[in-house]
Amino acid sequence: MSELRIRAKELDGADELVAKRAEFVLDSASDGASGTAGVYLDGNSLGALPAAVPARVADVVARQWGELRIRSWTEGGWWTAPERIGDRIAPLVGAAAGQIVVGDSTSVNVFKAVVGAVRLARLGDPARDEVLVDATTFPTDGYIAASAARMTGCTLRPVTPEDVPGAVGERTAAVLLNHVDYRSGRLLDLPRLTAAVHAAGAPVVWDLCHSVGALPVGLDEHGVDLAVGCTYKYLNGGPGSPAFLYVRADLQDRFDSPLPGWNSHAEPFGMRPEYEPAPGALRGRVGTPDILSMLALEAALEVWDGVSVEQVRTKSLALTDFFLECVAAYVPDGRVTCLTPRAHGERGSQIALRCPDAGDVMRRLIARGVVGDFRHPDVLRFGFTPLYLGFADVERAARVLAEVLAEAPAGDAG
Amino acid sequence: MSELRIRAKELDGADELVAKRAEFVLDSASDGASGTAGVYLDGNSLGALPAAVPARVADVVARQWGELRIRSWTEGGWWTAPERIGDRIAPLVGAAAGQIVVGDSTSVNVFKAVVGAVRLARLGDPARDEVLVDATTFPTDGYIAASAARMTGCTLRPVTPEDVPGAVGERTAAVLLNHVDYRSGRLLDLPRLTAAVHAAGAPVVWDLCHSVGALPVGLDEHGVDLAVGCTYKYLNGGPGSPAFLYVRADLQDRFDSPLPGWNSHAEPFGMRPEYEPAPGALRGRVGTPDILSMLALEAALEVWDGVSVEQVRTKSLALTDFFLECVAAYVPDGRVTCLTPRAHGERGSQIALRCPDAGDVMRRLIARGVVGDFRHPDVLRFGFTPLYLGFADVERAARVLAEVLAEAPAGDAG
Repeated sequence: MSELRIRAKELDGADELVAKRAEFVLDSASDGASGTAGVYLDGNSLGALPAAVPARVADVVARQWGELRIRSWTEGGWWTAPERIGDRIAPLVGAAAGQIVVGDSTSVNVFKAVVGAVRLARLGDPARDEVLVDATTFPTDGYIAASAARMTGCTLRPVTPEDVPGAVGERTAAVLLNHVDYRSGRLLDLPRLTAAVHAAGAPVVWDLCHSVGALPVGLDEHGVDLAVGCTYKYLNGGPGSPAFLYVRADLQDRFDSPLPGWNSHAEPFGMRPEYEPAPGALRGRVGTPDILSMLALEAALEVWDGVSVEQVRTKSLALTDFFLECVAAYVPDGRVTCLTPRAHGERGSQIALRCPDAGDVMRRLIARGVVGDFRHPDVLRFGFTPLYLGFADVERAARVLAEVLAEAPAGDAG
Repeated sequence: MSELRIRAKELDGADELVAKRAEFVLDSASDGASGTAGVYLDGNSLGALPAAVPARVADVVARQWGELRIRSWTEGGWWTAPERIGDRIAPLVGAAAGQIVVGDSTSVNVFKAVVGAVRLARLGDPARDEVLVDATTFPTDGYIAASAARMTGCTLRPVTPEDVPGAVGERTAAVLLNHVDYRSGRLLDLPRLTAAVHAAGAPVVWDLCHSVGALPVGLDEHGVDLAVGCTYKYLNGGPGSPAFLYVRADLQDRFDSPLPGWNSHAEPFGMRPEYEPAPGALRGRVGTPDILSMLALEAALEVWDGVSVEQVRTKSLALTDFFLECVAAYVPDGRVTCLTPRAHGERGSQIALRCPDAGDVMRRLIARGVVGDFRHPDVLRFGFTPLYLGFADVERAARVLAEVLAEAPAGDAG
């Protein structure tokens, strides 16, 4: 057995999260070829299925919907699910209860948050007219921020994250930043950038899609104004499960949503013609919550019982360090280059490797049971979910990657 | 057996939709007291569970998510679900394929549609600055229309539907109307009102929440511009199942969404910084679709195989006529008054009865297995879903209503 395989075994033996693995559905034969269990490194796209979810969803469908029907809105806790599940997510992002609601897609929540931020900024200074957005971000954030800017009479200014402190100023109405870049896996310095935006008197919106459930965020500690995040990556909520919106407690009574649906009304069943926003985080709700997906997410969040996000972060860094070490040992120099920063303080929970034939390489990796994903034009993206991945998985993934790369020298991709 | 019970039996015997009842989960013991099957008259709030749904959802969770994971986005048809399911709804609202996408809540779709309508109107005349909204409508439509008006620099003007033809004019940028009123069950004259709005050169948005699946709509035939609707009422998609957006084919290349998320991009996986909208109905998509709820809806729509919405309408009118006849026979004159128009051309698929102690009456009706709902301040609301209700149900509901009303003379409500 190679030295790295021995190391992997030792690391797995010392892993205090190892028991959590049994709370997920993993290693089905369909993941890999010829009886070898697969290695799922795409939890940063769609988290694996928590074992508690199927029975919960079956109960929601057959009993809550099929038998109790509308009574479940009150008796079954459907109506309060958005804020109840928000409170369950809160400790994972360092937020006290009462500041998060779950519902709608990430894109829709980005719209609420950016428009809400601009309106908050203008309460202090109506002349603020510029929305800054991370130029390297996941595109939907840029598209939605452009719409939010257009609809509030602002100019959209794309900047690289390192230029934010120099770019913010008295014209800044809102800044939208991605905590971890979807492509490179780079982690931004949230405390420093938040402080820089605040020094210019503007609110900041953080997109936590690639950090929630993977590393500590500290929303309350760092005074973040608004944040959004998705729940189907490191929170394992299921395909397209609802996103969330955080509005800091002291801003809630001034949060002015561009989507004031009846679920955000102070008296939703009053059916009153005048809109009067609910107090608290509920103000971020819009329409009828998507119960099947929302309650699947609630069941998925039970895997966090007895686990702190700090433990997850420690293991995440150990996993990505070990993956880089295995890649360095197995893959010939220069065949791939690492896009993800080496410094722990700048790394999320994924490793992005660049190689010219990445699309072809990923197809063949997947055929051999190592599932990551390809991002245009030349990125192999591997996500590491500490709750269900072990060090032996990581070693195997690097080994199979080296084998696939050895078969396909750069330039030979069909 | 009373004359009405005999009539009910005859009508059920002649019902050509009677076999559809077996495709739903009904009559659980939890619906009624002491062994009497319940009568579910709240399908206009949450449709009953179609029998095909539980197994489909179990497969989506355990196999598509749990085993195939991200592969299901392509191999399992997840990615194309919004437009595929839209095409399944299309014939129910008289629309050719390629004009409907499913996703987001009704409120979010109202926002897309009203903003989109204003922008379409302004391509013809940039000075149009007034949004007309049905003053009697479900409140969320008014709240969201107010936000859409505010964010496009328009004034919101609430009008009663009968005043629309006189109120539209050269300032009109968009008109939002509810096809069937959620409270009274009144059906508006869609062809006439659409023509009146068009005569003023403006686009109209129809909210079909209480008509889709209950009666023919004729979107294409009547030249409707945009429409939205929900899927958890007469389409039985499940609690909070995704809503839909219709954009008429010839308007799609000019439809300018206020929520241009990455799912509406011409090349969503290009991850390009510039937004370029997809052609066709896809332009109405926003973020990652909510797969669990969406595929539950797809299974629920299978009950429409072999059924036309015209058949459903014929039975719906027969059911509500028969209910009114039974109420007239069983309930003493003056104890309740009917809020729903008697004329078939003005009636949706519900009956709203007014009585001063409606809240208390509904609580006791539900305790006896007849499930409708209460709408503030004095409305008993009964929805009639022809696919799973029979005439004997209707007779029993009226009989139990009369018994409950006899126990509680008006003014005695506790």
